[in-house]
Amino acid sequence: MKILILTIAIMTSVSTYSQDNDSISKLIIGMEKSALERWNSGDPSGFLEISAKDVVYFDPMTEQRLDGLDKLTELYEKVRGEIHVDKYDMINPKVQSVDDMAVLTFNLISYIGEIGHKWNCTEVYRIDNDKWKIIQTHWSFTKPNIEY
Amino acid sequence: MKILILTIAIMTSVSTYSQDNDSISKLIIGMEKSALERWNSGDPSGFLEISAKDVVYFDPMTEQRLDGLDKLTELYEKVRGEIHVDKYDMINPKVQSVDDMAVLTFNLISYIGEIGHKWNCTEVYRIDNDKWKIIQTHWSFTKPNIEY
Repeated sequence: MKILILTIAIMTSVSTYSQDNDSISKLIIGMEKSALERWNSGDPSGFLEISAKDVVYFDPMTEQRLDGLDKLTELYEKVRGEIHVDKYDMINPKVQSVDDMAVLTFNLISYIGEIGHKWNCTEVYRIDNDKWKIIQTHWSFTKPNIEY
Repeated sequence: MKILILTIAIMTSVSTYSQDNDSISKLIIGMEKSALERWNSGDPSGFLEISAKDVVYFDPMTEQRLDGLDKLTELYEKVRGEIHVDKYDMINPKVQSVDDMAVLTFNLISYIGEIGHKWNCTEVYRIDNDKWKIIQTHWSFTKPNIEY
């Protein structure tokens, strides 16, 4: 009987730790939107504050993957105050998760004046010290008009 | 004493399930290279066979994120036999993992003749029925030469 009770106690503690997919999804989309709204008004700190030390990063302007929060900070500090997006449309955000890692994907249209710039985005979040942190960011242009 | 033994047994079973990061990393990079080599000789089935039902997908030619293995299969079947990459260089592959999810990122140069095409890639793998499957693929051009 004691063994049974202990087993149930352990199983309960594991399942309490697991958030369901819906609540993880809402939390992560909320975090992403908050950081994006700060970014859109020229403040990159929203993303930096929720990125992990070992974050890796792609965008269409970088020569190769950037590794680590120090490198990302250096990149973002160069554009602090330079970005002004008037409005955005986060299209069809989707979160696929396990207990301690989740991937958020979405299309984004960032409007500067009347012109909409189209992006693809993948963010990977991981639980670090009980908080969700970004460990991978990949921004790319949707259908860039170039010859391959 | 029985309780202690049971507790140790449960902890051992959990830690046996956890592969260390190095072995996950080697396994996933190996899976990716095998699929990529089949892709490079015109066979998209390597990627399709290791993609999950709920895979999501970005590449620079798609208008928006594709959702699900059926859509990805439809896309890939259109290029079956059409792709011939002579050699490739997977640059600096990195795997960040927890027990049942992992993100692989790398830069890639695909050589067609003497011309090297540069890519950024993010793959997210998840354990499905004891096998690693891709749940998210994001391909983009490295520094596409367009005006933003």
